[in-house]
Amino acid sequence: MTDKEVSMSTTQSAPTHPTVAPLQPPTRYLFGPGPTMVDPRVYQAISKPIVGHLDPYFIQVMQDVQELLKPVYGAENGSTLVISGTGSAGMEAAIANFVDPGSKFAVFANGYFSDRLTEMAKRNGAIVVRSEKAWGETFTDAEAAEFIHREKPNVVGYVHAETSTGALQPGHAICAAAHEAGALVIGDCVTSLGGLPVEFDKTGIDIAYSCSQKGLSCPPGLSPFALSQRATDWLNQRTTPSRSWYLDLKLIHDYSTVSHRYHHTVPISMFYALREALLVIAEEGIENRWERHRRINKLFAEQIEGMGLGFHVPAAHRIPTLNTVLVPKGVDDAKVRKRLLQGPGIEIAGGFGPLAGKIFRIGLMGPLATEEKVKFFLDEFKRALSAEGYSF
Amino acid sequence: MTDKEVSMSTTQSAPTHPTVAPLQPPTRYLFGPGPTMVDPRVYQAISKPIVGHLDPYFIQVMQDVQELLKPVYGAENGSTLVISGTGSAGMEAAIANFVDPGSKFAVFANGYFSDRLTEMAKRNGAIVVRSEKAWGETFTDAEAAEFIHREKPNVVGYVHAETSTGALQPGHAICAAAHEAGALVIGDCVTSLGGLPVEFDKTGIDIAYSCSQKGLSCPPGLSPFALSQRATDWLNQRTTPSRSWYLDLKLIHDYSTVSHRYHHTVPISMFYALREALLVIAEEGIENRWERHRRINKLFAEQIEGMGLGFHVPAAHRIPTLNTVLVPKGVDDAKVRKRLLQGPGIEIAGGFGPLAGKIFRIGLMGPLATEEKVKFFLDEFKRALSAEGYSF
Repeated sequence: MTDKEVSMSTTQSAPTHPTVAPLQPPTRYLFGPGPTMVDPRVYQAISKPIVGHLDPYFIQVMQDVQELLKPVYGAENGSTLVISGTGSAGMEAAIANFVDPGSKFAVFANGYFSDRLTEMAKRNGAIVVRSEKAWGETFTDAEAAEFIHREKPNVVGYVHAETSTGALQPGHAICAAAHEAGALVIGDCVTSLGGLPVEFDKTGIDIAYSCSQKGLSCPPGLSPFALSQRATDWLNQRTTPSRSWYLDLKLIHDYSTVSHRYHHTVPISMFYALREALLVIAEEGIENRWERHRRINKLFAEQIEGMGLGFHVPAAHRIPTLNTVLVPKGVDDAKVRKRLLQGPGIEIAGGFGPLAGKIFRIGLMGPLATEEKVKFFLDEFKRALSAEGYSF
Repeated sequence: MTDKEVSMSTTQSAPTHPTVAPLQPPTRYLFGPGPTMVDPRVYQAISKPIVGHLDPYFIQVMQDVQELLKPVYGAENGSTLVISGTGSAGMEAAIANFVDPGSKFAVFANGYFSDRLTEMAKRNGAIVVRSEKAWGETFTDAEAAEFIHREKPNVVGYVHAETSTGALQPGHAICAAAHEAGALVIGDCVTSLGGLPVEFDKTGIDIAYSCSQKGLSCPPGLSPFALSQRATDWLNQRTTPSRSWYLDLKLIHDYSTVSHRYHHTVPISMFYALREALLVIAEEGIENRWERHRRINKLFAEQIEGMGLGFHVPAAHRIPTLNTVLVPKGVDDAKVRKRLLQGPGIEIAGGFGPLAGKIFRIGLMGPLATEEKVKFFLDEFKRALSAEGYSF
């Protein structure tokens, strides 16, 4: 049977549905906090014909992804795997496997995603204690240590790069204090992975999750995960199963890296995409990539400040890939965003919760972290702000 | 800025990773229980540039998917939505939202996936009662009614098309008895949706989940879901939240169909793919599609029997898209499968659990449900069986 004969098309005609139009997404420049732009090679990869989830070729794809993730996470001593869901599924996997009912979970709470961690842990029956700060502030080493030593939790959670505020929370002091207290540490790396150093091993994180659609420049749908030896040992010593079967890391780890025994049918096409996105990163070199993001975001910050605009977070505590720019007085941020989307097709995000109407969230990640893209964005941003009454 | 100038590629060279080869999946003919073959139009759709998950265009895509799912489910009175995970995530969403800790869950247990339902419900703290039969058998209307009336459960679960055995379990009597007893019904439609009538409304199912990679001919990664008005009312009356935040149907329903308020960043590319797969189905006509699957699988069964081979399930109870063919005496099923995969690139599956080594699981779904593909498969299947010592 020739290739032509085994064609898989059962329809030849152009789409003719009465109410649903052919798929033609508009061109968007994704300058928000995520999803961000995807390299064309990743779109080629995602459209390759699928194989089965137990096919030897797919097992190799999965292993390649795990291998390629290690330098990106800085988890050469840890193990990596991928959850079949988005970043929030990764967060829930961390909670469902490590924050057991009745256990004590200490959260550094300074933004929306630490609130989500809190909510998930409560739903899983844990006792949650929080050290709270205003959205956009960070915790000093001394504050981190004091909270953990006082509370003596089983597990500590923090958000490395808080997407809702633009603040970067270093993890070294948190991990050191947690380990002194005998606690495991969950680090939310959703907005950091791929765009800035996570340093999983060096920081001492035990459980980290991320997403595919931010620093990795891949479409959303998968959650890359990392586990320290301490976390893996803890998991292996569990005697009761996690409340979640779908997110049971023992079963997923067994399918992914040990026996390759069926657990669930994983999203094959998304794995193709993530593998290609990680190859693109490996070819650039992860250190070069981090440096490019640092340099371009510094350039962006200088130009934003040169325009007379301010940042929500002090320079020393900013996420180098996601900028929270203060909305100038008298400007309606929603109108600016609408103008950018409907005009040049630029997506940025606004603030929410206590920061609603107060900040623009502007991401410069992956293919957008270039001088050319900064210029493109700032020209359009200035035009939109001017049209909404701001004078430079 | 021209299209050329806003190119998103940051690398030009061919892949040069020292250990990870360029992605080149082998050509596979997916004649197993799933994933199955994907229409080329779906691969085009999945590779379209993404937009944001709150973009008006994406909200429309999501609504189109919900609309296109209704005739496929036969859920014109119910509501449809999509879970950001695979079929197993759909199963867990059904359990996590409707089978509460301490509630009584009655399961018709005759295969692997009813065991998975049992396991998930136990992990969620429910009291599980089971009516058990051998793998491949089905329950009569009288047996279904007797079990439900005797147990008086809060929720009933059954698997419509049991992938592990090839048996089809009708749901009418189960739903009727459950509603008399005041119970909700969860119907697992993972292997039926798109390939045969589910008749969600007519059968009386309250909560149904499926997957994208079987009867819908789309890559794996999403779980199409349907809810009856009774199930929606029940959900709206909940006062305690589901233990799962990621799979919380109240929050997902609100994002999908009510306020479109952010819940999580959904897998945009997978939604593009599912929308296109559903358009392909709509263009063929869902009734035509069911009829094509019936006709082709009847043809297949005649030819299999003409070869002197038998089926595990009696003709009246077979899933019309997934055939469980008995492994002839003296033949090693694993060797036959290996030969098919390594030679013509055909994937079929074996049995597991009590059916390990006893059956071949052969799916003829979507683009494979044609006379030409049946001939292609049977020629290769005969050749592989002969090579492994079976004489026709």
